[in-house]
Amino acid sequence: MANPGSNKISLPVIKRLPRYYRYVLGLQRGGLKTVSSSELASILGTTASQVRQDFNCFGGFGQQGVGYNVAVLASELEQLLFQGSQLDTILIGTGRLGRTISGFLAREAEGFSLVAAFDNSPVEIGSLLGELTVRDVATLPAYCEAHGPQVAVLCIPEESAHALAPTLLRQGIKGFWNFSHYDFSAGGPGVTVENVHLGDSLASLGYQVRHPAKD
Amino acid sequence: MANPGSNKISLPVIKRLPRYYRYVLGLQRGGLKTVSSSELASILGTTASQVRQDFNCFGGFGQQGVGYNVAVLASELEQLLFQGSQLDTILIGTGRLGRTISGFLAREAEGFSLVAAFDNSPVEIGSLLGELTVRDVATLPAYCEAHGPQVAVLCIPEESAHALAPTLLRQGIKGFWNFSHYDFSAGGPGVTVENVHLGDSLASLGYQVRHPAKD
Repeated sequence: MANPGSNKISLPVIKRLPRYYRYVLGLQRGGLKTVSSSELASILGTTASQVRQDFNCFGGFGQQGVGYNVAVLASELEQLLFQGSQLDTILIGTGRLGRTISGFLAREAEGFSLVAAFDNSPVEIGSLLGELTVRDVATLPAYCEAHGPQVAVLCIPEESAHALAPTLLRQGIKGFWNFSHYDFSAGGPGVTVENVHLGDSLASLGYQVRHPAKD
Repeated sequence: MANPGSNKISLPVIKRLPRYYRYVLGLQRGGLKTVSSSELASILGTTASQVRQDFNCFGGFGQQGVGYNVAVLASELEQLLFQGSQLDTILIGTGRLGRTISGFLAREAEGFSLVAAFDNSPVEIGSLLGELTVRDVATLPAYCEAHGPQVAVLCIPEESAHALAPTLLRQGIKGFWNFSHYDFSAGGPGVTVENVHLGDSLASLGYQVRHPAKD
């Protein structure tokens, strides 16, 4: 079975895990009992050997020639992705995007628990966000010292993210879900950053639509 | 200068363009006049030769040894990314995420013009979204035939995206900004899909925080 403590899993493999999990859940909902690596590969647009290689990083999940048991696969992937304690998560920036993302965290995210939200706007501070009261971002260091949250979601402008990053790193935040345009690439060892740069994604879409490849 | 009609630009290069543009804008705001490929590389966490290679895909932008003129670079990148007509864009799904994304399109996106919004919920249909009135998704094919929008933003569940995809492709949509969990990989030639899978991004963040690499 899985070897989640290992440090040998490469980032591209980790990034593929959620897709595997989503597909396998779909197969399970569809009543499928077993699936071969080549079936998984064709759904995912990759190769059977890639799928086997990926799964081997976690010690397998199946037997050569027999295919994977869908229920076992789903449960192993679920354990890998979401096992263990909830990650205490703080939201910084409770504007429109921040509120949408907090709704996403509350309704659709497994393994994360939103424990506090911060903003710097007098309009936002003291307002309700679900069951939380939005706090003044000036109280962020004290909050972190007292409660030690593990993950921060950044829904703030680039400059604010740039200014807050050292504080957050000093306070021991281990994971950043970063919607700001600030490129948080240098988090340091043991720190994970997932950048969601909506503007970059949209700009690259626009470029491709305007300059279609000629096949 | 740029050769935007070319079909030889690889996807990774295209994906890096928005980041180059953001950084160069930052340098320009900071008053910098010239920048070398190695300076750009160090900011972007890549190599000088990568930067030069990327820019060479578009015919250069600078002279070897002199560095790039920041203002020229900014304007060339801007032209590449946002030049030409606005892309007529429709939003499908006007729930919380859809409304946030429409705000993003209106306030922060260059080169896209939101021309119509659709939903299937009686609560949403007829409601206002900025200056648009939300339309019944049943009228989507007729709308597309009459107006020929180029880009669709999908803020709907996986099943709805799966069901609507063939219609949208048939109606000639050329670009998809896809927030649904539906993997829209098989758009066909001339169709561009940018997937923003928030759930995958968050799941992979959670995995990494729970299983830190031991260095």
